[in-house]
Amino acid sequence: MRGDPRRLQAAAYPARLDLPTRFGDMDANGHLNNVAIAQLFEEARVQFNTGSAQLLAGARPRIMVAHVGIDYVAEGHYPLPVALMMGISEIGNSSFRMAMAAFQADRCFALCDSVLVVRGPDGGRAALPQVLRERLEAHRLNG
Amino acid sequence: MRGDPRRLQAAAYPARLDLPTRFGDMDANGHLNNVAIAQLFEEARVQFNTGSAQLLAGARPRIMVAHVGIDYVAEGHYPLPVALMMGISEIGNSSFRMAMAAFQADRCFALCDSVLVVRGPDGGRAALPQVLRERLEAHRLNG
Amino acid sequence: MRGDPRRLQAAAYPARLDLPTRFGDMDANGHLNNVAIAQLFEEARVQFNTGSAQLLAGARPRIMVAHVGIDYVAEGHYPLPVALMMGISEIGNSSFRMAMAAFQADRCFALCDSVLVVRGPDGGRAALPQVLRERLEAHRLNG
Amino acid sequence: MRGDPRRLQAAAYPARLDLPTRFGDMDANGHLNNVAIAQLFEEARVQFNTGSAQLLAGARPRIMVAHVGIDYVAEGHYPLPVALMMGISEIGNSSFRMAMAAFQADRCFALCDSVLVVRGPDGGRAALPQVLRERLEAHRLNG
Repeated sequence: MRGDPRRLQAAAYPARLDLPTRFGDMDANGHLNNVAIAQLFEEARVQFNTGSAQLLAGARPRIMVAHVGIDYVAEGHYPLPVALMMGISEIGNSSFRMAMAAFQADRCFALCDSVLVVRGPDGGRAALPQVLRERLEAHRLNG
Repeated sequence: MRGDPRRLQAAAYPARLDLPTRFGDMDANGHLNNVAIAQLFEEARVQFNTGSAQLLAGARPRIMVAHVGIDYVAEGHYPLPVALMMGISEIGNSSFRMAMAAFQADRCFALCDSVLVVRGPDGGRAALPQVLRERLEAHRLNG
Repeated sequence: MRGDPRRLQAAAYPARLDLPTRFGDMDANGHLNNVAIAQLFEEARVQFNTGSAQLLAGARPRIMVAHVGIDYVAEGHYPLPVALMMGISEIGNSSFRMAMAAFQADRCFALCDSVLVVRGPDGGRAALPQVLRERLEAHRLNG
Repeated sequence: MRGDPRRLQAAAYPARLDLPTRFGDMDANGHLNNVAIAQLFEEARVQFNTGSAQLLAGARPRIMVAHVGIDYVAEGHYPLPVALMMGISEIGNSSFRMAMAAFQADRCFALCDSVLVVRGPDGGRAALPQVLRERLEAHRLNG
């Protein structure tokens, strides 16, 4: 992730969620804890997928998290808020890849790649429903 | 709680749960965070109540937490494990009070009082089932 | 706390902090976890005390949490935001009591009382500095 | 990670940490939360690195987490304990890669790769001290 300079630019991402940090997000080193940063990315991912799920009412497939990778590129700080930038980097047959970046004061301090898999009622992999595919296409990473 | 010197003695409590602490339980002050200490007490309470719930199979009432109060009497430290001591201090008609204390290296660093309420299938308060009452009586605080 | 009907009214509290909830604040019961609610109250308390600490630059005493008690009066829900209402209910010689309430959609779901103690450079109890006492008086619970 | 079948075998890993799970590790889906699983891996990583740091007394370099990637291969469950298996998969000039796997009841439910970087007193990358290199070599993944 960090090898791609575009990923450090907020302009690359079509969606955004702003969240305050909490005192409890810090660890004994006095900066945002790695696991707390993972929770901030989880929150952005959940809110993005909730938007997707609302399109899928009826025979709603489950969207499962298969992989999460985070590059910790700088320290994050409390009580600064975090801007979580989001976009879709890959769309497959039954899965997609979400690219995120966390910013404080216009500086990126962490990057996140998540692989999400769509599962049908039987628990097996299912093809991305067309309405979901269109939403993902509309949120492609810029550039 | 802290006004009662017996509450600081491990011998007062008939039940015990030992738990390791986690790096993530510390906060920016470098000691166990107040909220993390609340989570350790939650774990002891859940495990105690799971033991109660297993007696109540069938028409199982729900045991709800109505109140939790914690006295922070000293600092807690990672990576020391915690001994969570538990006992029942009051048994009412539809509720009971659980008294806990957290120790590290034989020193009490926090006390906890929880009020738990039994609710029936309609969500209203229900009388303590006899089998639960007997279990609570068997776990009364000593002395 | 819950015995005092004023405590359930937002109008009783002179200060307010709005926070979003996180998916991770829920537990296996699908509502806001008791410990997560304690963390929301911690965040409000930390932000209030940060405001106090900024007045105390120089010979800054430490403000320690000696007690936290929470009444869980209803279920809290994600993804609703939380309004944390705050006021000071007691001011002593070296300690004060902070009263808080957590609201969602104008409904109070939890009350919190915290006892905070001022400690001097030697770790012992210290008298409340005058500038802190004035700030606390200015944030008394209404009514 | 999951593409390598050896990584799913406990026998591949030379070190092990057993941890209990907590009720608070579950999320609203009723299984171990992805972020909580990240915290369990953090705990294993911290304990492994604490062992390394104890060898480095004196001019102690800082070991920073640059990347964490987790494959979620199955659901994890409370209250089962977790066996965290650990080994070193790569040793570079100033960084190393740690491979972990989380098991419950002899079934792997998550894999983790972490990249750790050694930084000197000036904050820049520093060569792995010889004593650390030897410890890492002694903990290579088996096979």
